[in-house]
Amino acid sequence: MSAYIKLKEIFREASLSSDIAGILHWDMSTMMPTNSRNQRAEQLAYLSKLSHDKVSSNKVRDLISEAKNEDLNKNDLQNLKEIEREHKLAFSVPSDLVEKISRTSAKCEGEWQEAKKNSNFNLIKNTLGELINLTKEEANILGKEFNLLPYEALVNKFEPESNIKLIANVFHDLQQFLSPLINIIIEKQKSQKILPIQSKISEIKQKEIAEHIMKIIGFDFKRGRLDKSVHPFCGGSTNDVRITTRYNKEDPFSSLDGVMHETGHALYELNLPEQWSLQPVGKSRGMAMHESQSLLIEMQITRSLAFKKFLSKLLKDKFNFMDKSFDEDNLYLLGTRVEKSFIRVESDEVTYPLHIILRFNLERKIFNNEISVNDIPDAWNEEYKRLFDKKIEKDTDGCLQDIHWFAGLFGYFPTYSLGALTAAQFANQLRVDLPELDSNIEKGKFDMLIKWLKTNIHEKASFFSTNEVLEQVTNSSLNAKYFKNYINNRYL
Amino acid sequence: MSAYIKLKEIFREASLSSDIAGILHWDMSTMMPTNSRNQRAEQLAYLSKLSHDKVSSNKVRDLISEAKNEDLNKNDLQNLKEIEREHKLAFSVPSDLVEKISRTSAKCEGEWQEAKKNSNFNLIKNTLGELINLTKEEANILGKEFNLLPYEALVNKFEPESNIKLIANVFHDLQQFLSPLINIIIEKQKSQKILPIQSKISEIKQKEIAEHIMKIIGFDFKRGRLDKSVHPFCGGSTNDVRITTRYNKEDPFSSLDGVMHETGHALYELNLPEQWSLQPVGKSRGMAMHESQSLLIEMQITRSLAFKKFLSKLLKDKFNFMDKSFDEDNLYLLGTRVEKSFIRVESDEVTYPLHIILRFNLERKIFNNEISVNDIPDAWNEEYKRLFDKKIEKDTDGCLQDIHWFAGLFGYFPTYSLGALTAAQFANQLRVDLPELDSNIEKGKFDMLIKWLKTNIHEKASFFSTNEVLEQVTNSSLNAKYFKNYINNRYL
Repeated sequence: MSAYIKLKEIFREASLSSDIAGILHWDMSTMMPTNSRNQRAEQLAYLSKLSHDKVSSNKVRDLISEAKNEDLNKNDLQNLKEIEREHKLAFSVPSDLVEKISRTSAKCEGEWQEAKKNSNFNLIKNTLGELINLTKEEANILGKEFNLLPYEALVNKFEPESNIKLIANVFHDLQQFLSPLINIIIEKQKSQKILPIQSKISEIKQKEIAEHIMKIIGFDFKRGRLDKSVHPFCGGSTNDVRITTRYNKEDPFSSLDGVMHETGHALYELNLPEQWSLQPVGKSRGMAMHESQSLLIEMQITRSLAFKKFLSKLLKDKFNFMDKSFDEDNLYLLGTRVEKSFIRVESDEVTYPLHIILRFNLERKIFNNEISVNDIPDAWNEEYKRLFDKKIEKDTDGCLQDIHWFAGLFGYFPTYSLGALTAAQFANQLRVDLPELDSNIEKGKFDMLIKWLKTNIHEKASFFSTNEVLEQVTNSSLNAKYFKNYINNRYL
Repeated sequence: MSAYIKLKEIFREASLSSDIAGILHWDMSTMMPTNSRNQRAEQLAYLSKLSHDKVSSNKVRDLISEAKNEDLNKNDLQNLKEIEREHKLAFSVPSDLVEKISRTSAKCEGEWQEAKKNSNFNLIKNTLGELINLTKEEANILGKEFNLLPYEALVNKFEPESNIKLIANVFHDLQQFLSPLINIIIEKQKSQKILPIQSKISEIKQKEIAEHIMKIIGFDFKRGRLDKSVHPFCGGSTNDVRITTRYNKEDPFSSLDGVMHETGHALYELNLPEQWSLQPVGKSRGMAMHESQSLLIEMQITRSLAFKKFLSKLLKDKFNFMDKSFDEDNLYLLGTRVEKSFIRVESDEVTYPLHIILRFNLERKIFNNEISVNDIPDAWNEEYKRLFDKKIEKDTDGCLQDIHWFAGLFGYFPTYSLGALTAAQFANQLRVDLPELDSNIEKGKFDMLIKWLKTNIHEKASFFSTNEVLEQVTNSSLNAKYFKNYINNRYL
């Protein structure tokens, strides 16, 4: 057996482990009885150690060297490249550091919940400081291994081949555009007449509507599910993609928008190339690319006027919601309200990037050693003032709002807005390639959309970087102008 | 680290694997989208290989020898004994034989569904023959390893320390008792006036009733669930026990009886000693003991008049089912009807053991090489005629009805009736120890019952054999007289 074939088998088993963990995670958030938490944590730790040990072994290192001398075709070489990336990520960070980070994150996450409840940053200052120092160690190691800046190495964990300088330029450009624009849009929207949704819609009915639309869009319920959880996500395993949502009786569209977002993620996973299933190169690219797929469906499609026409007709004809708040124009206005919120997860697509830019700027300063953990609350509030021209009064409205840092996730935030920019760039091309797209959506026909996404993006899996895919599809590397045009067209 | 401590860690990890597999199995039967079947099969095969490799290794064999020379207390010695048993089971059968059996079983199970549909034994004759030959190989190997007769070694896989001669005697005794008795009971019941259940009960309501009763009995929903599946089972993992049922709108009590059966299994699992969780000695004993716990709840408790009084009152007071078919006497009569069925799973507790004795007798003949695969249909029909004095017209009513043999499960059947006998023996003692039991049950108080089961049986886990527990609790080894008395009292 060739070294490469041996590697394929090892990584297939590692993928099985993480697929199994995916089902256990889904179960934990949707079905698991409350007191099983400790047992489940043990099961997940065991699976994670199992695949870490498998992927990081010296044997794998040797097999990779051997395989490089074997006669491999282009696709196999790309798979080998991804195998090596996964191996280096697991091998280079010593397992006692991995363990320390995971233990400290668990502790920090617990303390954060307390700190958030009391809006008191001091309660987690020390543990967060520890966690940041450990993550700096990790960032330095990964930076050396992959020849990247330390912070860049963290971002690359989530979105491979990300370039921090490029991101910083794009984000700077975007911020210059958005900060003044927001005031103009808010001013403009003051004169809009919007009817709040009149009918309360039960959870069962909301689920029925959501599943109905998911089916029309092309979600395959033979290979996936929709369930309920506190925090919506897209999870499960290969060929069995499970999304979740939460329901708000007063605001039925918050759930539907969430379902559409996760459906975007799910379609990507479900359309990955079957013949590369369980191999590193057959996986979805990175979190920025993933987010581009969810936002493309949620923002570019679901919030378009064409979709609202389809939705309004569906709600009236099939579900019998007749009152005027379900009119297409009203649904469109409801879906495009802009507001300056303190809270990232409550914000709209226009202000959202500023929340991300804030976090990105702070993360860079933290990992460039420009600010220490003690400076975080003030630095946050200053940056918020600069971007939004609004004052933060309490840390729950500021640096305590998101779980990410306290769970050890640094370098993750930028992928959200990279996703939004990428989505806009794809969507622009989509409407060039398919001029009849909107008239199809109005009629509830989504097959040309899904086929386009599948061929141009989903099936490419990890054979190319996100930027390479962007260039193949749009003839341009990442560029904020598409997002800016989109915002101008929709909101001005 | 001592050899014993190392073994404990290895077997803890093997238990984690099988706990994880338990959740995946549950998911497969209750939640999983249909097209995920292949992927799930791969995941389960991976987990099973993982724990097999772990448990069967030469390293484990060496550690066991070492640990035997270490200074261990009584409980640890018992754990070591169970560790060795699990190791020998996994080590002694060559992995290529294990794989052949598993592949042939999968094939045979598929062909069996076809054969059953067409009521044509010839369609699976060859594959079943192959599977029997492979299982004979396994039985010979295990027999030598554990110093048992080949067929006995198979039964011991499911219920350790089973003695075939003892079982054969007990079953012979039981058959002599039951065959004539059945005609008498059926004759007697002809004069009973029974009202069929009048109200149809929706699935949602049936589930509500079942969960309500489960809670009253003491099932802890913080450590378990009730769901729906085609074949009811008790599964899940340590500290997270999940039972299932199916619903029949026309016959609400078929579901409730099933739920009570699985609740009996679940209580056993949930009351195992926490400090030995994930260790071999901390697991439930064997399938006969397990079945005794499910049947004790389903038959000895749920079908008692005391329970029907409680149930009738509950259905009327809380769920508002007022018609006379829900009267306690009528519920009691409904739950104790006796009929000669061809089908094991449709039969009552009086005729049930005869179905098992039939299969036990045939299995012994197969593994003693007294009959070949070609003889099975005729041998089955003759034995049925002898036991029930009734003629079988088609193989779906005979040897094609159960999945067990076609899935490679030989030696499993006897545990069902050993469980029924054991349950009766425990229940007799239970009513001696707790004379106020029935009056408590009538009032819906189950705590003394559950405490008795926990202390006398559940907490003993695998520290003793089933027969040792019987002797500790009832001062007698397995004896059919308790079951016979119970049948006489309830049915004559």
